[in-house]
Amino acid sequence: MRLYLLPPSFHGQPSLAVSGKDAQYLTRVLRLKQGQRLTGRDADGALWHLTIQEIGRDRCVLHCEPAEHMEATTDALPDYGGPLPRIVLFQCLCKGKKLEQIVRQATEIGACRIVPVQSKHCVVDIFAKRKDAVEDRTARLEAMVKEAVQQSGSRIPTKVEPPIAFSDIPSYWGNRGLGLFFHQSIVEGQLALTETVAAYRREHGQEAPVAVVIGPEGGLAPEETTLLEQAGFKPILLKTNILRAETAAVYALAAVQTIMTEA
Amino acid sequence: MRLYLLPPSFHGQPSLAVSGKDAQYLTRVLRLKQGQRLTGRDADGALWHLTIQEIGRDRCVLHCEPAEHMEATTDALPDYGGPLPRIVLFQCLCKGKKLEQIVRQATEIGACRIVPVQSKHCVVDIFAKRKDAVEDRTARLEAMVKEAVQQSGSRIPTKVEPPIAFSDIPSYWGNRGLGLFFHQSIVEGQLALTETVAAYRREHGQEAPVAVVIGPEGGLAPEETTLLEQAGFKPILLKTNILRAETAAVYALAAVQTIMTEA
Repeated sequence: MRLYLLPPSFHGQPSLAVSGKDAQYLTRVLRLKQGQRLTGRDADGALWHLTIQEIGRDRCVLHCEPAEHMEATTDALPDYGGPLPRIVLFQCLCKGKKLEQIVRQATEIGACRIVPVQSKHCVVDIFAKRKDAVEDRTARLEAMVKEAVQQSGSRIPTKVEPPIAFSDIPSYWGNRGLGLFFHQSIVEGQLALTETVAAYRREHGQEAPVAVVIGPEGGLAPEETTLLEQAGFKPILLKTNILRAETAAVYALAAVQTIMTEA
Repeated sequence: MRLYLLPPSFHGQPSLAVSGKDAQYLTRVLRLKQGQRLTGRDADGALWHLTIQEIGRDRCVLHCEPAEHMEATTDALPDYGGPLPRIVLFQCLCKGKKLEQIVRQATEIGACRIVPVQSKHCVVDIFAKRKDAVEDRTARLEAMVKEAVQQSGSRIPTKVEPPIAFSDIPSYWGNRGLGLFFHQSIVEGQLALTETVAAYRREHGQEAPVAVVIGPEGGLAPEETTLLEQAGFKPILLKTNILRAETAAVYALAAVQTIMTEA
């Protein structure tokens, strides 16, 4: 673990008692001993030097010191300290393992929000499942995101949302920035990524967030691309082979992040 | 299956008898019946309309018609028909499943050659294994590449090579084009991807191939980055979080392909 996400109960106190799953993880999985150090990040994104002060039965106590300049001094965190675009990933539901892989990799790359979407050609129908099964699934994805943030040392506090219906994408997004959807058939008015990003930034500045919509294994239905276009989303042709859904998600996030950080 | 890779024995004859594993795959796995059609690609990259003419015990006969303009008329193949850069991926060995995932995804994206590399911080030591175990592993990766080309309809006939030692990268590559290695610590002389690609192309033209070196889970050792730099490879800082090896490979390929096809 590169980074321990401090619980919301942490407000800068010099000493923090940790219990339950977190304590088990620190003491049994990572096998940290008294006196060993790790890095923490609080809910506001600030970094902390943490030292294991005391280990008890299913609990431990951490000594916490602010660590403002740590990003420059430890190799446990990424060296790239420049700005990253705020990306919201609308990911159409795939089979369980594939969705988990996408969520994990999107978290590593630094999507700030991941919204699973029920679309027409999804092989799963999440809204046909029992409410508690859907909640279980969201909880599992949340746990996976937390682990991926900690393991990758991501500076972005990624959040995963409960699933929404495809038709709710426009109202969820509320036109807060540049909306892009990727698919692999040429449609009318399709744009190149670089120009689209550049044109949008000229109008709205460098800081505007980006929505990225990725279809399911079966692709987006024509009425779905129409709905997105009417809501102002831009169709982007990926200049590559046909990719499976889990490759397309990572590819599109990498392409958007590269164009936005290199430009 | 989007695409059946025609065997080397096919040289444009109107009728082709297929036996063994290929025949089993077509008739038992895909359950194609007499009269059903599929798309084929020959060893030179040309496309063919294939029709199942006859099905026998462990064999079948295909009727073959050239299909020059098919890319524009079928939705089974990618619509993007423009040039793709020739990318050679030098991938340091990861644990079995991770390496397989990388090889599959690199094939989908269209790397033309994938070379597994034994590096210092690899968790596996391929050269300590028995010769037949290494050959089995290469054969498994070759089968996986073939399946990925067929499933993704890739236009690039990806090849996977037997593993090489890290120190053999320079002689294998032989300075045939732009060499890049990605790592996540800032090193002296590190460059931005866009400028590096643009500068190289000004000098060597659009068609020069690109080598992409991706480290193992433990990263590249300092003597390995020195060896690459002395051989003319350029260090590139990915402007993102720290990524796990399997995410880094897809991210780097997507970044390189995007910069090269968008620029």
